[in-house]
Amino acid sequence: MPSMRAHVFRVPAEGPDDVSGVAALFAAGLKPQNVVAILGKTEGNGCVNDFTRGYATSSFKTLFRKHGVEGVSIVMSGGTEGALSPHWTVFAREETDAPATRALAIGAARTPALPSHDLGRRPQVLMVADAVRAAIRDAGIGDMADVHFVQIKCPLLTTQRIAKVEASGKTVATRDTLKSMGLSRGASALGVAVALGEIDVDEITDGDIGTRHELYSRCASASAGVELLDHEIVVLGMSSRWSGPFQIDHAVMRDAIDVQSVKAAYARLPEGKLAAVLAKAEPDPSGQVRGNRHTMLGDSDISGTRHARAFVGGVLGGVFGMTDLYVSGGAEHQGPPGGGPVAIIVEKET
Amino acid sequence: MPSMRAHVFRVPAEGPDDVSGVAALFAAGLKPQNVVAILGKTEGNGCVNDFTRGYATSSFKTLFRKHGVEGVSIVMSGGTEGALSPHWTVFAREETDAPATRALAIGAARTPALPSHDLGRRPQVLMVADAVRAAIRDAGIGDMADVHFVQIKCPLLTTQRIAKVEASGKTVATRDTLKSMGLSRGASALGVAVALGEIDVDEITDGDIGTRHELYSRCASASAGVELLDHEIVVLGMSSRWSGPFQIDHAVMRDAIDVQSVKAAYARLPEGKLAAVLAKAEPDPSGQVRGNRHTMLGDSDISGTRHARAFVGGVLGGVFGMTDLYVSGGAEHQGPPGGGPVAIIVEKET
Amino acid sequence: MPSMRAHVFRVPAEGPDDVSGVAALFAAGLKPQNVVAILGKTEGNGCVNDFTRGYATSSFKTLFRKHGVEGVSIVMSGGTEGALSPHWTVFAREETDAPATRALAIGAARTPALPSHDLGRRPQVLMVADAVRAAIRDAGIGDMADVHFVQIKCPLLTTQRIAKVEASGKTVATRDTLKSMGLSRGASALGVAVALGEIDVDEITDGDIGTRHELYSRCASASAGVELLDHEIVVLGMSSRWSGPFQIDHAVMRDAIDVQSVKAAYARLPEGKLAAVLAKAEPDPSGQVRGNRHTMLGDSDISGTRHARAFVGGVLGGVFGMTDLYVSGGAEHQGPPGGGPVAIIVEKET
Amino acid sequence: MPSMRAHVFRVPAEGPDDVSGVAALFAAGLKPQNVVAILGKTEGNGCVNDFTRGYATSSFKTLFRKHGVEGVSIVMSGGTEGALSPHWTVFAREETDAPATRALAIGAARTPALPSHDLGRRPQVLMVADAVRAAIRDAGIGDMADVHFVQIKCPLLTTQRIAKVEASGKTVATRDTLKSMGLSRGASALGVAVALGEIDVDEITDGDIGTRHELYSRCASASAGVELLDHEIVVLGMSSRWSGPFQIDHAVMRDAIDVQSVKAAYARLPEGKLAAVLAKAEPDPSGQVRGNRHTMLGDSDISGTRHARAFVGGVLGGVFGMTDLYVSGGAEHQGPPGGGPVAIIVEKET
Repeated sequence: MPSMRAHVFRVPAEGPDDVSGVAALFAAGLKPQNVVAILGKTEGNGCVNDFTRGYATSSFKTLFRKHGVEGVSIVMSGGTEGALSPHWTVFAREETDAPATRALAIGAARTPALPSHDLGRRPQVLMVADAVRAAIRDAGIGDMADVHFVQIKCPLLTTQRIAKVEASGKTVATRDTLKSMGLSRGASALGVAVALGEIDVDEITDGDIGTRHELYSRCASASAGVELLDHEIVVLGMSSRWSGPFQIDHAVMRDAIDVQSVKAAYARLPEGKLAAVLAKAEPDPSGQVRGNRHTMLGDSDISGTRHARAFVGGVLGGVFGMTDLYVSGGAEHQGPPGGGPVAIIVEKET
Repeated sequence: MPSMRAHVFRVPAEGPDDVSGVAALFAAGLKPQNVVAILGKTEGNGCVNDFTRGYATSSFKTLFRKHGVEGVSIVMSGGTEGALSPHWTVFAREETDAPATRALAIGAARTPALPSHDLGRRPQVLMVADAVRAAIRDAGIGDMADVHFVQIKCPLLTTQRIAKVEASGKTVATRDTLKSMGLSRGASALGVAVALGEIDVDEITDGDIGTRHELYSRCASASAGVELLDHEIVVLGMSSRWSGPFQIDHAVMRDAIDVQSVKAAYARLPEGKLAAVLAKAEPDPSGQVRGNRHTMLGDSDISGTRHARAFVGGVLGGVFGMTDLYVSGGAEHQGPPGGGPVAIIVEKET
Repeated sequence: MPSMRAHVFRVPAEGPDDVSGVAALFAAGLKPQNVVAILGKTEGNGCVNDFTRGYATSSFKTLFRKHGVEGVSIVMSGGTEGALSPHWTVFAREETDAPATRALAIGAARTPALPSHDLGRRPQVLMVADAVRAAIRDAGIGDMADVHFVQIKCPLLTTQRIAKVEASGKTVATRDTLKSMGLSRGASALGVAVALGEIDVDEITDGDIGTRHELYSRCASASAGVELLDHEIVVLGMSSRWSGPFQIDHAVMRDAIDVQSVKAAYARLPEGKLAAVLAKAEPDPSGQVRGNRHTMLGDSDISGTRHARAFVGGVLGGVFGMTDLYVSGGAEHQGPPGGGPVAIIVEKET
Repeated sequence: MPSMRAHVFRVPAEGPDDVSGVAALFAAGLKPQNVVAILGKTEGNGCVNDFTRGYATSSFKTLFRKHGVEGVSIVMSGGTEGALSPHWTVFAREETDAPATRALAIGAARTPALPSHDLGRRPQVLMVADAVRAAIRDAGIGDMADVHFVQIKCPLLTTQRIAKVEASGKTVATRDTLKSMGLSRGASALGVAVALGEIDVDEITDGDIGTRHELYSRCASASAGVELLDHEIVVLGMSSRWSGPFQIDHAVMRDAIDVQSVKAAYARLPEGKLAAVLAKAEPDPSGQVRGNRHTMLGDSDISGTRHARAFVGGVLGGVFGMTDLYVSGGAEHQGPPGGGPVAIIVEKET
């Protein structure tokens, strides 16, 4: 009986438009139509006016179009602060004759376009929850406990979008464009929590989004970008219908320096080569880490998301001994306040 | 026979002018005249226009003046990026009747004012070397191998200082004010290397400063600030003429994620409470960390020194489980390129 | 019959702690006890973590304390973007035997400390309105139409203040520290509008603050700072009980490039030497200036207030041919949306 | 006898990839093959890591490729600080049967790729001078006094390019990537000065570039970008071989607030609709404007080029009453120190 098999490639990028490394994979035999998703770290500010995400997305669309492929999930997260290194992680899958064992499974889905007046509100939560369930089915994961990472690319509000909503007589959840990124990430993460059964949907109101930090998903990771209006969802987990050498597990960091949780998750995985580390980071909303004040939330020169990526990038760089980590900022409702999920994928030695 | 005994206090700061924690130490019995140095992390940008250093320095001068004390070395390093926490580390010393054992020793010295046209050039190296030797003598350290950290506060060039030099017909080493900080730190660090016998003074030319990265001191730490024209030098090491529970050792990180060297140094110290961690960080001048590109040197929004402090702050925060670390940016000639010295002070359990 | 006479001095500052120019005025005969207010432009970011305001304030307090003077209004506005020049404007007044003519009048007042949970809400409006009325009385201005500029220094929320409010079971108007500056400025400006009879106090609700841009005062100017908890108010206008060569008028810029209104106000004043230009600037909340998009509100690298100060600084620098202008950012409810008040003080030729 | 006729269109841009306005011009009849150049203001930081320039360039290349057109000069200048508005200025030309009158003439040329070790040095000056002469011939301008604006897009050094040069045993003019932009702009501007006969080529040495501010061209405008290795040159001037309603003149601002020179140039032009304003801006290297200190060169949070664009954008926005101005930063050797050229194009009423 055949099975599905995942492939994971980590490819360095010389710039937001440098897709040559992925083109080289295609030249070496990877079939473009097998690619499910590309998760990228680009070198912009990761905030509202980060055009490196759109530039990279546009470069990849051109590449895939050349190969006649459409619909690949392209999730760009801006911000390679500190020594973090711009790179692409390519997730592909194919049917194989190998018998199914328990292995890394990958699924994807998209939502319809989100009306801007729903952004950061309950309808966004519901819309995302539906699509996450679809992505889990697409991955062939039966048990919610086997879901280890749900990556969501979600929209944000721009000055123009806000004006359009208000011109129509409706309101927006916030008129602050940078803040809209946080609300969109937060609502998306709560959508994951609802889909995974971590939170009852009836428990969530508009007012909870961005404020009730104790509501969170243990494995949601959301990035907001100006370049889309819908949501792109990629689910990573373990499934007994898949085969191949890749294994995934995840940790939930309780705060920005919680290396113990990360090391414990890493230790649960078999020996092998690190294939990818995917993490979320945020400034602790309490303004403190283990009782000591941090200054990330009061810095008007550098966004707190940039501080957090740089710092947690350092924490994880120290643990894993590498810098091409996918550390994404803004972890609202993604792990406990000030902490966040860290997924680790290992390629088992065979 | 009496001995000298060191005291080390780590005090949180609510802002650059919050000296209340140190005032509380005085109220609790610490004698102001016993304080040799205060090393502070303030929450400015750590670059040219960081006035938090001057503000903190001025606040401490006012405090010490109230107690009739002058001449304390006040070394403020700007920049608490990431989750780093603004704080003061107070170094004091006193004579005690306890017999000398091998313990942490503290010494201090100042240079004369540096003419701005000498900044970043060989005369600065020589001037600093002299004062470092004086500070080592002041600490009562006999063996250069027992010196573990030499902290130097050095001047920088401002637009006005450059104009004054050029009006006098002389030249400056650089007309770029931000760059002048790096040259001043570099020349100071080479001064430490000369004093410790790590580098022969005849080996150093003007052109080497800031360029020949392979010339470095294993335990120099320099911070540039607009608020002084001379150099303040504090030496930390082990001496058999001192007593008390404090012990110091240091690591030299080979790159930004070299936790192994740090853990090894930590392991060499006896069990006890962490009293202070003092480190230097810089963007690897090669543009890479272990073969992967970083973007710190090409970022025109955030200075590379800020990126490096945030990231290495994370690396060390993960290792030590605390965020009130003294991580100072700009490690020119302070440890190998892209790496830097890390001093660890432990208060032995007794 | 004696009269009051105003003095206005514009003094360059080499740094936030450079009060030497004002000390020189004292040495030259200006009586420190005659100083009512100092309005300063300091070179910080003008946002939450701008410590140059506190540093300058502290430096002036030390200077005045040396002269045994307390209670001078010290209003520091951060941000000298573009070619704007750091400087202090000293406002003094004294009784004189000269007969009263119509001339510049200066008044001052302070509010009690504002509870942080009232910041950005109606009680702040009311508290400020009371103090503005007191300052107008202090200036001896009889007709509200003769008030040309009301400068207010108001508090902001910090992460710690927010935590304290929330710990007490109350809420804050916003948990975003940067945004709290705008709300505080807005509520203060509405307080001016109420005091001047421009807006009926019953018309204003909590929800209007920061949102109903059509509510504004034609001559309010508010700056928020971390260094105070109350409000400092300085009123400038014309009074027939005053004498001397200084005359004031003001314009209301309708948008960021409205030089016509400024030139018209300037033309209404008699010939003479420019003594001071005091203005407010903000990014047009519509996201456009005369139909063309601006990018100030979506820039996550540079705060919109900094952009606006730089740009309007250029507009006014072109009109007045000088760069030591008091251009203050964040003009919520201070003039029409995207515009702002500009007060011009001229020293009549005699 | 037929003549050449210029067309100038100013088109708003919703983002770096929004070429829809230009596509609409094509749909309305403008022939893509008649387009000589597009000068764009994009909303990045205008410094080293500004990817909006490359993104816009790539978007235009795709658009022109669709129409089978290659070789259009696409000159993107990053940075719409203050209220400056992102937009494209399209320069087209066509042969017409109308008799030649004196009118706006447009010419273009490219250099070969510049070896990175020549950047900021004399060979770059010579290479650019040759191509400027070619562009002037291409424009059919006979008298050098009729050249009013020479726009050059030039390369910069990146960390990788520097490494490559040094690996080859050669040196670079600077290892500071941001500084390389200034040197490249400066050498390009001196190339214009040489071509126009403003400076004798023998007068210029490597050491003069970026330092001898008194050497400058009155109408050079250079922008550096990471996305090219050669130079793109566009010349604008008056020629008696051209026809049509467009007229150009230029001013040389002596400092950042010199509106008199700008108004005088504007007054020399006939009545008509403003078609385009093209200007250069820079922080005065003296650190002062008319004797008052500015803080642009010592600001480590915001690049001086960004400050200067915002401020001079305001100065010119006030004069011209519009914000979609092409204000480009970094005016080394482009006009006198602290000042810069301003070209004004008017469409004569007919």
